[in-house]
Amino acid sequence: MDSAARIERDIETLAGPDYTVSDEAIRRYAYTDAYRRTLDYFVRELEALDFDVEEDAVGTLTARNRPKGEPVFGVGSHCDSNRNGGKYDGTMGVVTALEVCRQNAEQSLDLPLQLISFLEEEGSGFGQMLLGSRITAQRVTEDDLRERFRAIDDGRSFWEHAADAGYQPERWQECAHVLDDLTGWIEMHIEQARVLQDTGNRIGLVTAIAGYVHADVVVHGRGDHAGATPMDFRLDPTTVLAETILELERLARGAGQGTVGTVGEIKVDPGLINAIAAQVRFSLDIRGPVEDAYRGVASGIGAFAEQAAATRGMTAEYRERQSIPPTPMDDRIVGALEEATKATGEAYMRMHSGAAHDTMCVADRVPTAMVFVPCKDGISHHPAEDADPADAALAAEIILEAIRALT
Amino acid sequence: MDSAARIERDIETLAGPDYTVSDEAIRRYAYTDAYRRTLDYFVRELEALDFDVEEDAVGTLTARNRPKGEPVFGVGSHCDSNRNGGKYDGTMGVVTALEVCRQNAEQSLDLPLQLISFLEEEGSGFGQMLLGSRITAQRVTEDDLRERFRAIDDGRSFWEHAADAGYQPERWQECAHVLDDLTGWIEMHIEQARVLQDTGNRIGLVTAIAGYVHADVVVHGRGDHAGATPMDFRLDPTTVLAETILELERLARGAGQGTVGTVGEIKVDPGLINAIAAQVRFSLDIRGPVEDAYRGVASGIGAFAEQAAATRGMTAEYRERQSIPPTPMDDRIVGALEEATKATGEAYMRMHSGAAHDTMCVADRVPTAMVFVPCKDGISHHPAEDADPADAALAAEIILEAIRALT
Repeated sequence: MDSAARIERDIETLAGPDYTVSDEAIRRYAYTDAYRRTLDYFVRELEALDFDVEEDAVGTLTARNRPKGEPVFGVGSHCDSNRNGGKYDGTMGVVTALEVCRQNAEQSLDLPLQLISFLEEEGSGFGQMLLGSRITAQRVTEDDLRERFRAIDDGRSFWEHAADAGYQPERWQECAHVLDDLTGWIEMHIEQARVLQDTGNRIGLVTAIAGYVHADVVVHGRGDHAGATPMDFRLDPTTVLAETILELERLARGAGQGTVGTVGEIKVDPGLINAIAAQVRFSLDIRGPVEDAYRGVASGIGAFAEQAAATRGMTAEYRERQSIPPTPMDDRIVGALEEATKATGEAYMRMHSGAAHDTMCVADRVPTAMVFVPCKDGISHHPAEDADPADAALAAEIILEAIRALT
Repeated sequence: MDSAARIERDIETLAGPDYTVSDEAIRRYAYTDAYRRTLDYFVRELEALDFDVEEDAVGTLTARNRPKGEPVFGVGSHCDSNRNGGKYDGTMGVVTALEVCRQNAEQSLDLPLQLISFLEEEGSGFGQMLLGSRITAQRVTEDDLRERFRAIDDGRSFWEHAADAGYQPERWQECAHVLDDLTGWIEMHIEQARVLQDTGNRIGLVTAIAGYVHADVVVHGRGDHAGATPMDFRLDPTTVLAETILELERLARGAGQGTVGTVGEIKVDPGLINAIAAQVRFSLDIRGPVEDAYRGVASGIGAFAEQAAATRGMTAEYRERQSIPPTPMDDRIVGALEEATKATGEAYMRMHSGAAHDTMCVADRVPTAMVFVPCKDGISHHPAEDADPADAALAAEIILEAIRALT
């Protein structure tokens, strides 16, 4: 059986009814039976390769072909899904890492490898994205795990759920050791956008994971009767919304360097056909791999909205919700991946990741990179998600060759 | 007691707990005890003036100082409220009409008058605006009254509620006779906007009630990941929304002649901070006293939205929900009101009404006009609604003098 067929078999198996808690989508999250069976599948496959398999104090799966204390190169991703998920997001990355381990054995390369499958990347269990890798990176507090992070299903704490599943959450600080011996880390993932498809590339070599600013703008106008209020007597906040949407587009394009800006939420108060809005709130999602660039757009659009409102006799407030800096990938690893990709003759591009990934939490301590493969029409986080096992097999070949060159 | 004090007493009485079904607002609608007591108040006051008082087959209150068959001049408004209403909308018009009747007696003018108080102007009972005056104008069907129009509170039909309240809905076609003897009709109402206040006028003489087009635009974009999708790969429908909001403002200003245009509802799908919208729907409320002008804006904005979407590789659809033509007021009555106003020396302006009023349903058969008085900051349909009884007294004086000149 060739690599692509094996990857396809793994993915289709893990899309079966034993591995999801929903009939209509892949819905798989930590401490469910479906998730347990998914880990068990990887455990069996990795033990068949003579890897030493462990789960850490909260359930991060690791498997290595060297004793602890010896350097290993990390590969992996996550095998949980969002609640209305598809077969590929995360899982295809772990399956591809498994295939790297298999090829390492079949080709008798004996490269030192450690596979990691993080838990709760999607936040389906406890509403916390990147939760497993944040625990590994110690980017949580004990209070978060004991009290604050609670299951979407039953409101009980992460701590209780982890303990009930047989783990030892009181030892969560030891989870940092998962990264102790890593000389590098490569995560393969579906792109979750349509750039590779639309540019005809089979491989994306990630040079940075975008940082972002999430913010809101509230424009205070004056609610009036839509029929009885002449145009010159209005303080209509939707006009400021409109100007800001177009200015955001202009600023993001002007900033370049992969900067993007989106207004995804718009709330109009009162939101009636015959009433001029009293107030409009809208969200801003501004991202990019270059912090100065997207930060410039964020501050520019905040100032613009306030000025646009003032020009029309209204007020607007820009409020940041949250921000995360970009995560640059390691030049040496990206370079090795690029050499390996060139050797295949397949079409590829360097790109950044606009979405967040577990690799962001690995990068603090370990030189990292990511490889993207196309997903059909950019659809992700949905049962219609689709990707080609042959692309994953190509990624496995490239990753293996890069690790060979690096170690 | 002078006119203003009497008007204030009437309004404050009818704002008492016996006259509303809510503790927090004026909430008064047909066939409730609060509404019955409100009608009874007017009945007592009008009988004290020796008017013949009647209620028609559905509960429209009429009172006249001439026998049926003799010509009378109509004055009145409605005394129901919206569900979160104030003291003045509608009720101040009926109270002012009552004051016209009182002054007619006190000044021994003996002008032939008929007061009308329409029911369900606001639609609080059955969700149907102008319901009472539409029944008078026969702009409903029997099926509407028997089946389609149902109480917001209990889902039972208008027919059942009217019958339970002691009326005879099966005789609804006879309600047309309410207008039989009218030689003219003047309705006084609060402005419900801030034009009079902001221009320093105490009286607005309405020359037309605006017609309108209600429509929706749906823009079909492509839902994508807000972080992972570069600016050049997006089909973001919020950009078409933005361009259309600004173009609507430009077109409405350009059309002039009192034309206004409003986007009051905006629905973004899926409406998440980190997702480019797949689709945006927004409402259009386009009005004015000059049909060609606002119709031009409506067709122009529909075409603009479709073209703006096409330019960006998307599609948009413009769909009309409903439209009503403008209602011109009668030149002769408006002229008589203007002469009477000038004689008082008070500041006034000619204006159109952007909001709908019962007078629209009277105008089919009777020469009509309306008089507006200011309401504080344009606030209406809200417990904070405020207006000055002295302005209503001035309006009563002007209306009485106009009727005197006309009859």
